[in-house]
Amino acid sequence: MKFSINQKNLYNALNIVRRAVAKNQTLPILTGIFLNLKNNTLTLKSTDLELGIEYKLQVEGQIDGSIVLPATQFSNIIRELPNETINIELNKDKWQLQIKCINSLFKINGYDPDEFPNLPQVEESANFKLPSSKFKEMIKKVRISTSKDETQPALTGALFEVESEKVKMVSTNTYRLSYIEAPLKTSVNEKIAVILPGSTLQELNNLLEDEGTVEIEVDNNYVRFNFAGIEVISRLIEGKFPNYELVIPDESNSKFSADLSQLHGSVKRASLIAKLDANIITLSADQELMEINSTEGSSGYAHEEVKIEMEGPEQKINIDAGYFIDVLKVLDSEEINIEMIGPLNPLVVKSKTEAGDKFIYLIMPVRSQS
Amino acid sequence: MKFSINQKNLYNALNIVRRAVAKNQTLPILTGIFLNLKNNTLTLKSTDLELGIEYKLQVEGQIDGSIVLPATQFSNIIRELPNETINIELNKDKWQLQIKCINSLFKINGYDPDEFPNLPQVEESANFKLPSSKFKEMIKKVRISTSKDETQPALTGALFEVESEKVKMVSTNTYRLSYIEAPLKTSVNEKIAVILPGSTLQELNNLLEDEGTVEIEVDNNYVRFNFAGIEVISRLIEGKFPNYELVIPDESNSKFSADLSQLHGSVKRASLIAKLDANIITLSADQELMEINSTEGSSGYAHEEVKIEMEGPEQKINIDAGYFIDVLKVLDSEEINIEMIGPLNPLVVKSKTEAGDKFIYLIMPVRSQS
Repeated sequence: MKFSINQKNLYNALNIVRRAVAKNQTLPILTGIFLNLKNNTLTLKSTDLELGIEYKLQVEGQIDGSIVLPATQFSNIIRELPNETINIELNKDKWQLQIKCINSLFKINGYDPDEFPNLPQVEESANFKLPSSKFKEMIKKVRISTSKDETQPALTGALFEVESEKVKMVSTNTYRLSYIEAPLKTSVNEKIAVILPGSTLQELNNLLEDEGTVEIEVDNNYVRFNFAGIEVISRLIEGKFPNYELVIPDESNSKFSADLSQLHGSVKRASLIAKLDANIITLSADQELMEINSTEGSSGYAHEEVKIEMEGPEQKINIDAGYFIDVLKVLDSEEINIEMIGPLNPLVVKSKTEAGDKFIYLIMPVRSQS
Repeated sequence: MKFSINQKNLYNALNIVRRAVAKNQTLPILTGIFLNLKNNTLTLKSTDLELGIEYKLQVEGQIDGSIVLPATQFSNIIRELPNETINIELNKDKWQLQIKCINSLFKINGYDPDEFPNLPQVEESANFKLPSSKFKEMIKKVRISTSKDETQPALTGALFEVESEKVKMVSTNTYRLSYIEAPLKTSVNEKIAVILPGSTLQELNNLLEDEGTVEIEVDNNYVRFNFAGIEVISRLIEGKFPNYELVIPDESNSKFSADLSQLHGSVKRASLIAKLDANIITLSADQELMEINSTEGSSGYAHEEVKIEMEGPEQKINIDAGYFIDVLKVLDSEEINIEMIGPLNPLVVKSKTEAGDKFIYLIMPVRSQS
């Protein structure tokens, strides 16, 4: 393997594929990045066996070949080199890569590339397309409600459902729930209902840009995302996702709206006191005003007031302030719309766009502590 | 206690005094900030018994009084409030402070201010003045060489010597040494030679601004710094500082200069490989070129070349790359001047300004590993 490449281009490529490099050292080769040169195409890939990322770019190739290099070390060196042409050459006898750039010379010891696992194939699959910006927004809103509890694997991911005209994503940790749907422009050949791992959502959120399209292919075990020259392959979570439709209320008794940034500020401040205890706040909405109170604990007390516009009877509910803040952070409208039934039913945040996008966020109430 | 204050002014004041708040919880009241209102002056202070900070500012006072408030909680709340007038009122029966700002109301439980220790007094002391920017620069260059080893307390701080016309600071962990001196414009009434704790240097570095003057008062046990309305009082380190003058070589065999940023880049890159081992690099200077090599270890090898101008015979030395990087970071010239005697004598970085400032940095060599 022998080729020339610009420092910035190589560093950018390494930053993409580094995201799937294994964090633990059980299989040392998985802490590395696989490089392959064929003609003038350099392919970089990484995998932790759950997630795999592949990225290709054009270089000035001279001799084809492959190697696996320790990711952190390789990236750190490329980062510190000046933005100039880097000349790279493999010493195959030692699995050692030589990196030359102006007055710098590095030799990095790597691994035999034949020992690097292949990324899984997605076969005979259902496939469709989504605008990258749309998919990124869905991920942002659904990611917040995934569970950290590994004893219920299905809840650590998000349900991903595609029917002829709609794509839906749902996540819940049983105390709160995110539901988002968007109209689909391309048709899908069969119905899809799979669970995407939370960690995959996280990496997609980091990698997706606001422009372009994502191609998505799904089979029974894997999903593949293709965008901006990047291929992301993820294992799916096995198991059954809970029947979320039963949980989302059809109707409400009271509806109110408030200024998003004012409400966000007030809940954040009330939480500064509430979190010293169990982070529970009480919302009391009455016609023109919502009061937000922490319980009066050993460290103090917080009281906030926010102007609202309200329809229906007054409402009072205890909720986890952290769950409320999570949704206030990801909403991008000026106003927030909230619906309530009563103190024992979930508080529901709803938003809708003219394009047909729908977002519902549920927070289960906490029973009064008194 | 009852007064009004602008949010930004209060938050700024809290950020200053928070720096001396105790990090551990052994004496809970020391994790708090003492507030006192007298007429229209609000005094804030904090101490961890090693370091104390006091700051005064003008407010619209109504009722005088004092309280101690948990620092983190109080600062977090003030940070999240809008930049408006805050009304503060003490409920002395409960040692509870009420904070009102537009639609926000907080009550924070605090401590009886009589239980807060007084900051120590500096008595019958030697005193002098320094420009803040000069003192900050001295601290920046001397701070890097203090030791972390608590078994030799004197080395965890910096020697601070003042004679009639000069101020000197020296620090060493025995493997490297910083020496800096500057001419003194104001006269000092007696010779000073004390050891300032490393943590005090760190906080001074954070608090000092580039404008104004620092007044410094020293007695046998404490030192007081006065600048920009801030008073910092620090315990001195007892013990004897090693005789550093014997270590600084009077002469050298070879002198060379290099471009600082080029050398910095090269050493940083070579260290990426060297630090996977013991972080030792070999410098070989010969007339027009300095080579920087890592030892060839299990993970790889680095070789860098930097152009130099040199007088005297060729030199080769093994040093700790981290110690070298530390000084390359704090130098602010375009060029670096280095002097050497031989492979068993320290490498010496020297800089001098026309104003009479002098900086010397020594790195002890590491014996060749072969």
